Amino acid sequence: MAKVKKQPRPKAETPKGFRDYFGAEVAQRKAMLDEISEVYQLYGFEALESSAVETVEALGKFLPDVDRPNEGVFAWQEDEDWLALRYDLTAPLARVYAQFRNDLPTPYRRYAMGPVWRNEKPGPGRFRQFYQCDADTVGAPSVAADAEICAMLSDTLERVGIPRGDYIVRVNNRKVLNGVLEVAGLAGADKDTERGIVLRAIDKLDRLGEEGVRALLGAGREDESGDFTKGAGLGDAQAEIVMGFMSAKRDTGAATVARLNELVTGSAIGAAGVQELETIAELMAAQGYNSDRIEIDPSVVRGLGYYTGPVYEAELTFEIKDEKGRPRQFGSVAGGGRYDDLVKRFTGQEVPATGVSIGVDRLLAALHAKGRMDNQTVGPVIVTVMDRDRMAEYQTIVGELRTAGIRAEVYLGNPKNFGNQLKYADKRNAPVAVIEGSDEAARGVLQLKDLVLGAEIAKTASLEEWKGQPAQREVARADLVAEIKKMLA
Amino acid sequence: MAKVKKQPRPKAETPKGFRDYFGAEVAQRKAMLDEISEVYQLYGFEALESSAVETVEALGKFLPDVDRPNEGVFAWQEDEDWLALRYDLTAPLARVYAQFRNDLPTPYRRYAMGPVWRNEKPGPGRFRQFYQCDADTVGAPSVAADAEICAMLSDTLERVGIPRGDYIVRVNNRKVLNGVLEVAGLAGADKDTERGIVLRAIDKLDRLGEEGVRALLGAGREDESGDFTKGAGLGDAQAEIVMGFMSAKRDTGAATVARLNELVTGSAIGAAGVQELETIAELMAAQGYNSDRIEIDPSVVRGLGYYTGPVYEAELTFEIKDEKGRPRQFGSVAGGGRYDDLVKRFTGQEVPATGVSIGVDRLLAALHAKGRMDNQTVGPVIVTVMDRDRMAEYQTIVGELRTAGIRAEVYLGNPKNFGNQLKYADKRNAPVAVIEGSDEAARGVLQLKDLVLGAEIAKTASLEEWKGQPAQREVARADLVAEIKKMLA
Repeated sequence: MAKVKKQPRPKAETPKGFRDYFGAEVAQRKAMLDEISEVYQLYGFEALESSAVETVEALGKFLPDVDRPNEGVFAWQEDEDWLALRYDLTAPLARVYAQFRNDLPTPYRRYAMGPVWRNEKPGPGRFRQFYQCDADTVGAPSVAADAEICAMLSDTLERVGIPRGDYIVRVNNRKVLNGVLEVAGLAGADKDTERGIVLRAIDKLDRLGEEGVRALLGAGREDESGDFTKGAGLGDAQAEIVMGFMSAKRDTGAATVARLNELVTGSAIGAAGVQELETIAELMAAQGYNSDRIEIDPSVVRGLGYYTGPVYEAELTFEIKDEKGRPRQFGSVAGGGRYDDLVKRFTGQEVPATGVSIGVDRLLAALHAKGRMDNQTVGPVIVTVMDRDRMAEYQTIVGELRTAGIRAEVYLGNPKNFGNQLKYADKRNAPVAVIEGSDEAARGVLQLKDLVLGAEIAKTASLEEWKGQPAQREVARADLVAEIKKMLA
Repeated sequence: MAKVKKQPRPKAETPKGFRDYFGAEVAQRKAMLDEISEVYQLYGFEALESSAVETVEALGKFLPDVDRPNEGVFAWQEDEDWLALRYDLTAPLARVYAQFRNDLPTPYRRYAMGPVWRNEKPGPGRFRQFYQCDADTVGAPSVAADAEICAMLSDTLERVGIPRGDYIVRVNNRKVLNGVLEVAGLAGADKDTERGIVLRAIDKLDRLGEEGVRALLGAGREDESGDFTKGAGLGDAQAEIVMGFMSAKRDTGAATVARLNELVTGSAIGAAGVQELETIAELMAAQGYNSDRIEIDPSVVRGLGYYTGPVYEAELTFEIKDEKGRPRQFGSVAGGGRYDDLVKRFTGQEVPATGVSIGVDRLLAALHAKGRMDNQTVGPVIVTVMDRDRMAEYQTIVGELRTAGIRAEVYLGNPKNFGNQLKYADKRNAPVAVIEGSDEAARGVLQLKDLVLGAEIAKTASLEEWKGQPAQREVARADLVAEIKKMLA
């Protein structure tokens, strides 16, 4: 008989860039998704849960945004086809709409929430699976659809706990940018590369500052590590027009619109874009969404190449401390825009669409950073096991508590060491421990240990005081539910 | 310049075996998952959301159940490693527990809900991505943990809308089966193959009947298509013992236990198993879970090879019509059991664990089959667009409705054809359409069209009656919210 080779033990680890979420983390994200979906539904959006796996072909081999080829997908071959995990919720929506367009209402307002996967190099706080939460309107050419999504985004942020004043929804329009580029002499298919560089440069204004962007518009820029990024090669006059665009924001929407109109003079597409921004501004103002919530800001461009009209972004405006303790703005938590070509890939017909994606994990991080979210959840009431033979009675106790809506469980580890049972209760953040030995049972009573109060006393009281055990008291078995309800109140 | 080859359009299709879920389907599943998680939490279980992607190594190359090698996973290579989509929620739990065992409480009660993926041949109603909803207790050796999960399963089914009497939770114990096999002379490592055949044969009792199982215990069985399945080769006396086991169920738990004790006479493992069943039965009875909810049933074996003690299964006992209109029992919707070796794969130390998996999609199908679930959800109030220039006013109307908690939207398609707007409202299952032309606006009124009543009238009334339009009436603009609230009440 051949000798069986002993297999090494598998490593108990997630793959690099993946992580698990426990207890409160799951509950908090769920609560946030529930709140977001309530707002989305109030606006008439319908849920869609598309399959996590798509053909690579449908996802657009591999990304619609060819400017970022590094943002790969997880893919594998099956017979002739390549399958892949979705990397966002927009590409699947385009596929779903193309596939079911005869059955779906038009316009089709849909929301989707769920994980997406990116085959990228993981880094600190940078995961390869994360949640997105999208709302899109497909088949509505009017910018009223874009305005609606901006209003909904504002409502959503307030609903999940970001108060007015702590966020701003900024709106811009790609057509205006295209108009400015046209005026700067960057129209035409042969200027594709330059336009791409300009777009990405503008998108980095926050990070690189004006000087850095100017360098990228011109010859190029060397970063701190010595890496050189090639610039768009614009002349000073051209660069001036682009820089003027980024700083075109004025105190009021009307003034910004007026300034943009000056900048795009002579460009038809630019003028159309400014007109759209004006319409959005009017709709927002009519509904009372003033500049404390939504404003026109020409510095917003959004990285993705597929946007064709309005683009929008929600930014949290409060400061947090970075990992080195320095204050910085929290930054963007949601963004989106109009993309009129994604469905066309499938059907050949242009289908107008606009939508937003909320980075739920970032939004949760923001609420944590502001101390608006409790990391600690209250655990269940723990019924300790003093006497292994009386397990049925302990189970009956938790049954009574659960019937009264109280979270409760029997300790199911080895009951021998009572200290371990209390340590377990502590680890679970249990508010109360129930103790019933055979002595108590014979007398028709129970001991209730108030673990919250107990922890408080342990912190502040002397050993003598602590020994008085004011946090533990005896109650009648019949009063169990009522007494625990009082303690939890 | 080289001629650019025109790319063919991608097909707008999900990969084979995958599907999308729309509107009501998503909402109903979410509602069910919410209810299930509330019961799980009441029992003290904590949420865990592990990553969808695991190393193939951690999943157990490819499945822990080597008896079913066809149940493949979706996997791809990354550098040295193979990564794969999880095929259930149990293997990831074992990995998580092994990875974080020093930080997690012991026992660790966790629940998880989410999609799993199987690289299987798709078939009608058989998908390669589906939801599971699991609860497991890790680190509790006592069968009180198994009993708790059976009670929780019973509570869960009633909570989601399966009334008592329409389901039964059946409990058995692998040790009893092993004892019976020992008595039948099938102990020992050299009888592994035979034991596997016997186990699968018992699992098929429902489908093949007594005769079919007997054939599989003996020489083998030829099915209708002529395919031959090799049998376990048991003699008549041996087969009789196994068949006796399957029909050992008696009217009461106590009688079943007594019968099982007879069958395992002489087997230590068998006696231990019967003892465990007895303890479970006592715990259940003490908490009032009688045989109308939970019963001992020796015909339950559960297919998976990794179970080591109690196994349990929830079956819906009502009849539904199959695709050919024949009545049949709905069958199993949940199952699980004790598996003490899964964590050991990682750590070398045996960690007792027990848990259940609910097939959420099957449970939803059951509620649909019983007509206990409405497929149609009520859509939003639709504000029609009579006058494109008054979009801001229409948006203001929906804003008012939403502030009052009423789902509402403006029609954002091309408003030219009013009939299309009403068709859209119909497709959305909208209860009310709001109509405000410039004439109405000037008079400070609106038209409200009751689409539910309208559909009713259209079905039953003559054309003359219909033209009277009793389903449409004029209300003051100021009374909008109050009037619509009345119509929705």
